Amino acid sequence: MSDFIVPDLRKMKLPRDLKKLDYKQCEALCSEIRQILIDTVSKTGGHLASNLGTVELTLAIHRVFESPKDKIVWDVGHQAYTHKLLTGRLDRFNTLRQEDGLSGFCRPDESVHDAFISGHSSNSVSAALGIATAMKLSGSSRHTVAVLGDGAFTGGLVYEGLNNAGKSETNLVIILNHNEMSISKNVGSIAKYLSTLRTKQSYHKTKNAVEKTLDKTPLVGKPLIKAIKSSKKAVKNVMLGSTMFEDLGFAFVGPLDGHDLEDLEKGLTAAKLLGKPVVVHVNTVKGKGYAPAEENPGEFHGIGSFEITTGNPDVVPADSFSTVFGKELVSLARKNDKICAITAAMKYGTGLQYFAKAFPERFFDVGIAEEHAVTFCGGLASQGMIPVFAVYSSFLQRGYDELIHDLSICNTHAVICVDRAGIVGEDGETHQGLFDVSFLSGMPNTTVYSPSCYGELKLCLKAAIDAQNGIQVVRYPKGRSNQVFDRGDLNTDLTYTVNGSRLLVISYGRIFENVLKAQEMLHNREVVFDTLKLVKIFPTEQRVADIISRYDAVLFFEESYKYGSISEKYSAVCPNVVSFAINGFVKHGEAHALLDECGLSAEKIAGKIEEFYNV
Amino acid sequence: MSDFIVPDLRKMKLPRDLKKLDYKQCEALCSEIRQILIDTVSKTGGHLASNLGTVELTLAIHRVFESPKDKIVWDVGHQAYTHKLLTGRLDRFNTLRQEDGLSGFCRPDESVHDAFISGHSSNSVSAALGIATAMKLSGSSRHTVAVLGDGAFTGGLVYEGLNNAGKSETNLVIILNHNEMSISKNVGSIAKYLSTLRTKQSYHKTKNAVEKTLDKTPLVGKPLIKAIKSSKKAVKNVMLGSTMFEDLGFAFVGPLDGHDLEDLEKGLTAAKLLGKPVVVHVNTVKGKGYAPAEENPGEFHGIGSFEITTGNPDVVPADSFSTVFGKELVSLARKNDKICAITAAMKYGTGLQYFAKAFPERFFDVGIAEEHAVTFCGGLASQGMIPVFAVYSSFLQRGYDELIHDLSICNTHAVICVDRAGIVGEDGETHQGLFDVSFLSGMPNTTVYSPSCYGELKLCLKAAIDAQNGIQVVRYPKGRSNQVFDRGDLNTDLTYTVNGSRLLVISYGRIFENVLKAQEMLHNREVVFDTLKLVKIFPTEQRVADIISRYDAVLFFEESYKYGSISEKYSAVCPNVVSFAINGFVKHGEAHALLDECGLSAEKIAGKIEEFYNV
Repeated sequence: MSDFIVPDLRKMKLPRDLKKLDYKQCEALCSEIRQILIDTVSKTGGHLASNLGTVELTLAIHRVFESPKDKIVWDVGHQAYTHKLLTGRLDRFNTLRQEDGLSGFCRPDESVHDAFISGHSSNSVSAALGIATAMKLSGSSRHTVAVLGDGAFTGGLVYEGLNNAGKSETNLVIILNHNEMSISKNVGSIAKYLSTLRTKQSYHKTKNAVEKTLDKTPLVGKPLIKAIKSSKKAVKNVMLGSTMFEDLGFAFVGPLDGHDLEDLEKGLTAAKLLGKPVVVHVNTVKGKGYAPAEENPGEFHGIGSFEITTGNPDVVPADSFSTVFGKELVSLARKNDKICAITAAMKYGTGLQYFAKAFPERFFDVGIAEEHAVTFCGGLASQGMIPVFAVYSSFLQRGYDELIHDLSICNTHAVICVDRAGIVGEDGETHQGLFDVSFLSGMPNTTVYSPSCYGELKLCLKAAIDAQNGIQVVRYPKGRSNQVFDRGDLNTDLTYTVNGSRLLVISYGRIFENVLKAQEMLHNREVVFDTLKLVKIFPTEQRVADIISRYDAVLFFEESYKYGSISEKYSAVCPNVVSFAINGFVKHGEAHALLDECGLSAEKIAGKIEEFYNV
Repeated sequence: MSDFIVPDLRKMKLPRDLKKLDYKQCEALCSEIRQILIDTVSKTGGHLASNLGTVELTLAIHRVFESPKDKIVWDVGHQAYTHKLLTGRLDRFNTLRQEDGLSGFCRPDESVHDAFISGHSSNSVSAALGIATAMKLSGSSRHTVAVLGDGAFTGGLVYEGLNNAGKSETNLVIILNHNEMSISKNVGSIAKYLSTLRTKQSYHKTKNAVEKTLDKTPLVGKPLIKAIKSSKKAVKNVMLGSTMFEDLGFAFVGPLDGHDLEDLEKGLTAAKLLGKPVVVHVNTVKGKGYAPAEENPGEFHGIGSFEITTGNPDVVPADSFSTVFGKELVSLARKNDKICAITAAMKYGTGLQYFAKAFPERFFDVGIAEEHAVTFCGGLASQGMIPVFAVYSSFLQRGYDELIHDLSICNTHAVICVDRAGIVGEDGETHQGLFDVSFLSGMPNTTVYSPSCYGELKLCLKAAIDAQNGIQVVRYPKGRSNQVFDRGDLNTDLTYTVNGSRLLVISYGRIFENVLKAQEMLHNREVVFDTLKLVKIFPTEQRVADIISRYDAVLFFEESYKYGSISEKYSAVCPNVVSFAINGFVKHGEAHALLDECGLSAEKIAGKIEEFYNV
């Protein structure tokens, strides 16, 4: 193009028109995108650093491939904001992570350009291989592109995928977005191995080797050689000798400079032309282009709203269930040198940073590897250690089999601290902690505590650690306690309050607070009911059934999926129990608004109670 | 020793006295052990080929290491029979896999020499790392040995373990028992990669390289060099240059000849002296020493009783739920080219050999990789294919998160055929299919069919394939249908039979047959009841609740763990339902005897019915 025209994202047909831009226009576009990302996330909160790192990569993918005919699968999806902007979601981008707004992850029901759901790490290779295989069976020669960070490579599912993909004879392009971070610094030997690739220097002989190989593939070879020759740097970066990926049957391209659009496009074009499964290694800088995020990518991984010029979060994080847990564990571990702490790449998220600092030799960040974490706990426990695995509810799902096989069967004593239990809010469906009560209470030899406040959390943690055997679960929600009422003596058991009513209301966890608020609301309307707060929610107990049997009606409010819930268990033995649990997946939005939609806000609880009271 | 004395296993202090034997005595011992293995398994059934392959390896491990001070973790455990014989379980070995007898796998509650539970593949590295870490924290310099086959390397959990173990600074010895089989021939690029190691030739330069390295470690180096020099072959086999394992931070020893005791002991001694995490590559022959098993290791992997001289199984396998499923799927796939079949290393076990032969391009054996299998199904389905994943109930547990995340959230249409649902018998606790009803009915967008006979299985499979969305589950037990009564028209819904009683008995799957037998038994005693056979067991239906509401009492018999069961779900909404489900883990034994213990035999069902009838 002759004159430089600043591209206007709002006027372009996307992603098609991206191919028309020259590199200078692309650069301008990247700057604009970065500004939109910073502006938006500073208001909505969200994943910033990972998205700033993939601006050029995303643009290059959309210029080299043709979505949605070619399929793009983003692992986790928290790096796909630019992809959203480039596939027709600019207008709605300010609704990011808000109710009825754009998801913070990829969702096929949000856009035809989101080829697969994302949220949980390390599934992209397997999903992309499924897509690529289906295309092959359908006679399509289109490409499937999986984009995953080196953090995802700490999850075993990636290897299962690679093991099957390497020899699959599909048009599968796996892009390793290498930033040496998952959320915090990556751990383990695979991260170290990948870093040796990251810094690998080019060989002069590579050029010849590449050409020699390509000459044997007549249809592909010539145009590819041409593509390589027309580039200043690509030759150096293509197929740098033997890597783990080549051992597994992949072609290997890279490392590419993830912020050099020309380098990226040459490399991706080469990968596209190979006609076989290929791994493309791309080096990116997390937080690229925004100094506070570049300097502190961990903090800007997932962030609330913040002030742009300084990068300071709007609210200094106060104590939360996570930090209270983390600090209490340090206190307990000072008195008991058997206590070990395990996290799956969530040191800060789970509040284990305090433990890591105080007892580095007893702290284990295993990477995004929940299966290993659980089995590792089993090994530690078999030798008399007391493993405490702190993990988000929805991610613990990955360890379901290991919980049964490596802990439950032998009645092994291990403590599982389930953070983000219940509604988490803006991260949406893939991250809500809806199922932990069901699946943990569906395993023999398991005890589940669900404290409603910090004080109870501390007591439950101690009880879980002091137990002699079994899976001891302590579950608590994301964020801060909303405790506003004084509720007398704290314990790890139950609190039963009699007000002389024929109606009993049961709940546990933070929802009990809403029951108390409902009581306050209904006080003036002379609706009086008894309450039962459960702390140890499972196993179910005859003592609780006996209390229930005294009442005409019992309403049980529960922040958990209905099937397998505690209220269902009591309903099964007590005909007078009516269960109010969560009816299905819960989309993203503000947590308290979502609780209201699920019928678990103080107002909704009050409404239900009044309804039953007046029958 | 001067005169050759044949060692007598029955008189030795085991495993301690093994160290006193010379190689000639060891050879005699190995022959004796092989004979015991063949004799016993020919009577009890069990895993033969894998055990015949590890006789020398097991002996070498027990001579080089000192169990139980050193810990030995057997992956899966179906290769640990020799380990059982060498650790004081010879007297009870003829009780293998029988009720109250020895388990077919490793169990810490069976012997102090079983360091960790086994049964599910690929957990050994993580468990062993936990044990090794605990020993390190406790100041012990003892070793932890994990023994796993190349089949286990198709499971992602192994990589999570390796990623954490490589740099762990523990005395961890990982023995790769390489026989190029898991149950059938191994699949995937990792299997191929490991095979390149298997056939790797020695380098002359290795010896010097090894010595050079070892000289730098003064305490360890000298004895190790001595050990190496005293061997004819070990030098050739120690540390053959760069492997994937070395990339991951391990030392590497091998390949060793898994049937040459001297070679094994030199290699294991070298590994033991290294004082860092090490992978020892051992080449073994599955079925070694018994011609029928060497020639057909797949058939002799897990086998019923057989005739020793010919190797012929006592009973020619007749049709089973698995083969009926497999053949029907072929028939359906002839008319629908969207149907794909997926197995996780269980082509024969699940009856998919027919499909694999008929439609090789639509058949996918993904290795022992249930997580990948589920996500791969999601990818296939997203492009309009109809994936049918046939998998054993207890192994599907590995895919729990992927079922929710990669199928359920998007209401994706995928068919999961759950084989070995319910009690499986001799394989015991780790293999019983107790939890699939609970965890699958605990996921939104899921339908579960539980056919009671072959005819229903075929109908359910068709219904599951014809559905438009959601996870469509068809679950059926191990082995053959025990159908003895004619029950009229088959359907995929329910069969309600009214005999004018106030008592209703509900069941599903093969247990319904026992309800009918109970009816026959009680006929003479004038106990009359109505019956409801469910085929589509989930979602629960108002229609069923309406039928239930007509009765004074409803007894629901169910071959599933009680929490999360279907009877629990109906109990929660229908106060007159009494649930008879399974109360906890079920140990090994004969399947029908175990069903009786669980109260689900015809006799026990009849007893319960009579009890309620007379109230």
